Amino acid sequence: MSVQEVPKESLKAVIPDETERRLNIGIIGAGRIGQVHADNITFRLRNANLVGVSSGSRKLAERCSLAHGCEPYYDYHTLIENPAVDAVCICSASNQHTDQIIAAARAGKHIFCEKPIDTNLEVIDKALVEVRKAGVKLQVGFNRRFDQNYRRVRDAIIAGEIGSPQILHIISRDPAPPPLEYVKNSGGIWMDCAIHDMDMSRFLIGSEVEEVYVLGAVNLDPAIKQYGDVDTSIVTLRFSNGVIGSIDNSRQAVYGYDQRCEVLGSGGSIHINNNYQNSAVISNSSAVKRDLPLNFFMDRYTDSFIVELNEFCDSVLNDKPVPCTGLDGRAPVVIALAAKKSYQESRPVRLTEVDLPLPESLVGWDGQ
Amino acid sequence: MSVQEVPKESLKAVIPDETERRLNIGIIGAGRIGQVHADNITFRLRNANLVGVSSGSRKLAERCSLAHGCEPYYDYHTLIENPAVDAVCICSASNQHTDQIIAAARAGKHIFCEKPIDTNLEVIDKALVEVRKAGVKLQVGFNRRFDQNYRRVRDAIIAGEIGSPQILHIISRDPAPPPLEYVKNSGGIWMDCAIHDMDMSRFLIGSEVEEVYVLGAVNLDPAIKQYGDVDTSIVTLRFSNGVIGSIDNSRQAVYGYDQRCEVLGSGGSIHINNNYQNSAVISNSSAVKRDLPLNFFMDRYTDSFIVELNEFCDSVLNDKPVPCTGLDGRAPVVIALAAKKSYQESRPVRLTEVDLPLPESLVGWDGQ
Amino acid sequence: MSVQEVPKESLKAVIPDETERRLNIGIIGAGRIGQVHADNITFRLRNANLVGVSSGSRKLAERCSLAHGCEPYYDYHTLIENPAVDAVCICSASNQHTDQIIAAARAGKHIFCEKPIDTNLEVIDKALVEVRKAGVKLQVGFNRRFDQNYRRVRDAIIAGEIGSPQILHIISRDPAPPPLEYVKNSGGIWMDCAIHDMDMSRFLIGSEVEEVYVLGAVNLDPAIKQYGDVDTSIVTLRFSNGVIGSIDNSRQAVYGYDQRCEVLGSGGSIHINNNYQNSAVISNSSAVKRDLPLNFFMDRYTDSFIVELNEFCDSVLNDKPVPCTGLDGRAPVVIALAAKKSYQESRPVRLTEVDLPLPESLVGWDGQ
Amino acid sequence: MSVQEVPKESLKAVIPDETERRLNIGIIGAGRIGQVHADNITFRLRNANLVGVSSGSRKLAERCSLAHGCEPYYDYHTLIENPAVDAVCICSASNQHTDQIIAAARAGKHIFCEKPIDTNLEVIDKALVEVRKAGVKLQVGFNRRFDQNYRRVRDAIIAGEIGSPQILHIISRDPAPPPLEYVKNSGGIWMDCAIHDMDMSRFLIGSEVEEVYVLGAVNLDPAIKQYGDVDTSIVTLRFSNGVIGSIDNSRQAVYGYDQRCEVLGSGGSIHINNNYQNSAVISNSSAVKRDLPLNFFMDRYTDSFIVELNEFCDSVLNDKPVPCTGLDGRAPVVIALAAKKSYQESRPVRLTEVDLPLPESLVGWDGQ
Repeated sequence: MSVQEVPKESLKAVIPDETERRLNIGIIGAGRIGQVHADNITFRLRNANLVGVSSGSRKLAERCSLAHGCEPYYDYHTLIENPAVDAVCICSASNQHTDQIIAAARAGKHIFCEKPIDTNLEVIDKALVEVRKAGVKLQVGFNRRFDQNYRRVRDAIIAGEIGSPQILHIISRDPAPPPLEYVKNSGGIWMDCAIHDMDMSRFLIGSEVEEVYVLGAVNLDPAIKQYGDVDTSIVTLRFSNGVIGSIDNSRQAVYGYDQRCEVLGSGGSIHINNNYQNSAVISNSSAVKRDLPLNFFMDRYTDSFIVELNEFCDSVLNDKPVPCTGLDGRAPVVIALAAKKSYQESRPVRLTEVDLPLPESLVGWDGQ
Repeated sequence: MSVQEVPKESLKAVIPDETERRLNIGIIGAGRIGQVHADNITFRLRNANLVGVSSGSRKLAERCSLAHGCEPYYDYHTLIENPAVDAVCICSASNQHTDQIIAAARAGKHIFCEKPIDTNLEVIDKALVEVRKAGVKLQVGFNRRFDQNYRRVRDAIIAGEIGSPQILHIISRDPAPPPLEYVKNSGGIWMDCAIHDMDMSRFLIGSEVEEVYVLGAVNLDPAIKQYGDVDTSIVTLRFSNGVIGSIDNSRQAVYGYDQRCEVLGSGGSIHINNNYQNSAVISNSSAVKRDLPLNFFMDRYTDSFIVELNEFCDSVLNDKPVPCTGLDGRAPVVIALAAKKSYQESRPVRLTEVDLPLPESLVGWDGQ
Repeated sequence: MSVQEVPKESLKAVIPDETERRLNIGIIGAGRIGQVHADNITFRLRNANLVGVSSGSRKLAERCSLAHGCEPYYDYHTLIENPAVDAVCICSASNQHTDQIIAAARAGKHIFCEKPIDTNLEVIDKALVEVRKAGVKLQVGFNRRFDQNYRRVRDAIIAGEIGSPQILHIISRDPAPPPLEYVKNSGGIWMDCAIHDMDMSRFLIGSEVEEVYVLGAVNLDPAIKQYGDVDTSIVTLRFSNGVIGSIDNSRQAVYGYDQRCEVLGSGGSIHINNNYQNSAVISNSSAVKRDLPLNFFMDRYTDSFIVELNEFCDSVLNDKPVPCTGLDGRAPVVIALAAKKSYQESRPVRLTEVDLPLPESLVGWDGQ
Repeated sequence: MSVQEVPKESLKAVIPDETERRLNIGIIGAGRIGQVHADNITFRLRNANLVGVSSGSRKLAERCSLAHGCEPYYDYHTLIENPAVDAVCICSASNQHTDQIIAAARAGKHIFCEKPIDTNLEVIDKALVEVRKAGVKLQVGFNRRFDQNYRRVRDAIIAGEIGSPQILHIISRDPAPPPLEYVKNSGGIWMDCAIHDMDMSRFLIGSEVEEVYVLGAVNLDPAIKQYGDVDTSIVTLRFSNGVIGSIDNSRQAVYGYDQRCEVLGSGGSIHINNNYQNSAVISNSSAVKRDLPLNFFMDRYTDSFIVELNEFCDSVLNDKPVPCTGLDGRAPVVIALAAKKSYQESRPVRLTEVDLPLPESLVGWDGQ
């Protein structure tokens, strides 16, 4: 039995086929999600190679790069400027995203950026302008689009298995609330939690949301009220193609991470259920029961993180459209802003009330 | 974008913690299952390191070792004798298993061996004698023991969630029959397919099978009859603790790989269902339906292959009991032999009728 | 084999226990729902006796009374005034309900009245004033309250099985739309369909609705628009106890009658599914599927019609509170009126905007 | 409110259509199952009329006939000889069945007889000889054939929805064992419980059982052993069309009445599940659970008792084949006898070993 040394070079096995190419990626940000992507690039993706990990925290940068056999960087600019880097994967705090997008775009590097791009539309648009100008690819990390359950819903709709969509319901409840300190700076339940569902609603229905109305409630900690936030919410949606829908969010479903949706169409309906650790059903003298659903987003959505990055690499390597563009990253922010306004003013809010006019240089762009 | 070179050294990332140790493994056999283990050791196991892959086929040995960044070996003896190798993972054809076990044991190497050890009890026992003499660990690859569903059944029984077990049913059906050529040399449905279920029945009930009775039928290809084999079978089991049970095998369930079981106990029952690609349910004007269950054993049991090897490494590194011993590998072979005899003679067969007396040097051994 | 004569007397078997009493009921209205109640009283209720059936249609009155071995009446006043009648079961067209309630109340007869009492609050209140003055029992026929699935939800909430309710979702979709002619006079989807769900929401949550907001869409027949109606609707609800919720209605779910609900509480959630003709699951090479849910409200809610009338009889015979009072019949009408206004004005509407002040003589009344 | 008198005449409502005919039935035996049939004839069947109920117990005869508005009889011969009686429904103890069948047949009355006809083949055959000679209809009360779930399985097989059947599994477990006193005289688990499943296996597969093998165990009360009986059993079946199968019986499944089956065919599989009181699913912090399945055979199979008698009446009134003939009643007895022998001798038993040659006068008869 040996104590292993640390190989500093690339650690990913390859079949040395001359035609196989890999995208050389640098990760910016070494927190939880950065580590997830580092792991996936290193151990699971055939078409990616991890060049380095940068973090403002020297310790995190070192720990994460060592664990994945690559170089640590203490300043993201250095990483971006490394000519060996083809693309960056931005996993930093949300308020740093656009600076890093802009830096990468100017350096001609392709960009995978965690959601949300930012919570300020003006700031987002400035970044998108740079992306378009640079002609680099930008994919936003709405990972649930790559989950097998949601994909099946989307596929069913596209294939006409349920006819024309008419009603959408999304249920998206967390197993437990984050600390109050986090909630305070989270941008509120709509920008923080529901934004995934707002993206999902556009993704599934294939149409833009025009108007929202929000019912909110505080059930867990009254202190949350002082931040203008809630822990329980129903957002209703009206889409431009006539579909109507609702998004149900809660910061706490005691039975676990509850992630379901349902679409009624003219030809039928489709719904997806939660994922479980096992399929065992136990019947005893008091009940027929099974274990709780998977409790943590990393367990529930494990594969989606691999698939999204795999598709990003494929998009860049083979010059295909990215599956979730910068404009796709922008749109749910508008919905979240409208939701907050609706809650504050207790009335339906049209998205045009909160949206900004697109910068001229983005007009007509499809995000690719 | 770069075309990658092949790093020949270890490819697994590590956190360079002095206390972290890895088991250096050599794989013997580079077919399908050998490649699976190579992948898992290289990319998924924190406590293992792949030293080399040997195969009688020069092409397979090279292809597999290159893909996993290790050395190819064209003779398993060389691999076994490599002092860098702590343990071997035997993935060759079944009839080569015991020679390789014996060679490894004599070289003092720990052994993970795919199932079945062999189909001949005399041959098995000769190998076990060497293993015991050498004092090395031997784990047999009944991977389903490490599947989350079956584990949940086992755990429920041990925890008393269903009281004392009384009846066991296992359903284990393949999606499609193998080629007739394969069937011919497979040892028959009981040695080839049902052996997993025979192991599972011992694993779940925690007691030895004493008697079997077999009903068999040929439904797919009459040619199968000439090999004394069937494609459809019900094996009934009587355990020494009084539990009774059945194993249902079919070479073809057109809806996919059907792997379920159920145990009735004095305090309740537990059953497990198939695994599915997604949880989507579609209702249209003709039916409420979902997609078929996972169709291939590698999709259904993916994780179990990782867990079994992880536990093997843990057993060796930390000198713990292995979770599936050589004797556990021997027992289902006895059941399969009895099943075949029962089918041939159309009568219940006690296992003592087909079993051999254990070699003296194995008496009293618990396989650890 | 005999051709049967028609026994004109009571046709219900009894165990001639001196203490067993029956409520003598006259049915007003011999359409579909009148026939259902006649059947249940005659053949299924131990505590009821059918005295007669009245209908403005001579043919219907005769046909229904003959079929149930009782006397036909061609004028409901005659039936009400029959001293043998203890109670009436009003099954006529909605716009006749209150006249008949008033006549029955003045005659001192107890009243079971189909929903809705009326669609005009002023008219409803006039009837309730008479009911209260007469001191007779009035139960409104919201039969779903008596369905085993919804009862289980209610019981779970009351027993604290899911803690304090936080979010309610009701899905209530018809298998096929009624004829346009019917829709025209139906009072709209909220007064006609959703009113059941508005009652259910109060019943389950045990609190009053304070505000509604409605999203509506026309997906089936554009002609429906000209009546100010829709065929697809989401009504959001805000309850006075802080619960928020949604009601999803569609005039057409092609897979059948879709009747589900879900409540999230602080301690868990409960949801109920559709009822099916059988539990068979068929797996073939294309899907795992089952037959469609029950397609017709009479199949889905068969038992609830029996239970509701049984409880009405029990209330009267043993002077217990009725399980669904006149005020319970009034409240969903207010919600439906608010829903229509919300749809017309595209804004949340508080119920106080459409409600009338209760007549002085009803203030403080609990409906019993 | 009135205290009801007891109408002694027919109590069933009719639509006085000249063409509607009813079968006048006398019930022999006023125990539990006799009361069920009396109730169904009186209150639920449009095509039947209850003439009288006979019982050796004066009290039971009176109680049951009064409850259903018909005449009590204290001697079944008197009931049979009543010219108003078209058919008898035999609900007495099993050992009286054949005497009553013979008496009814000789009187030219059609016969519905509860299962089993008898447990002695010679006795059964004597009765069948009389039935055939008299040319009356005889239907045996295997009610599960009329249950919607089992019917769906049968229909699927006949319609080819699963191709050619290959494997059958029946699970049939009672919620609690009967008193030891009952067990003693029950004829054993195979004649008492499993006989339903033996009928079901022939019904579903549409082929005769040729051989059985039985595994039995005593898990509940060791005293049961002294009667040569068991409380837990697996019977394997080999059908003449090549299908193989198993029947799993237990006198006690603590979670309720467990009634399921599954058939694998060349084109797919079908399985049916238990029936539940409600469809509610509750998720809390410890499990996802639902209430237990229906616990009592009368709740589970309520409708089947109505349907079987309805079809019997239809057979007689319209001279159609009965859906479960005297020969269908005889066949499961042979299987049960073979099962007992198999258990006693611990070996597979062919049915020809226990069967008697059919009396000459029954040869070639199809039971109609």
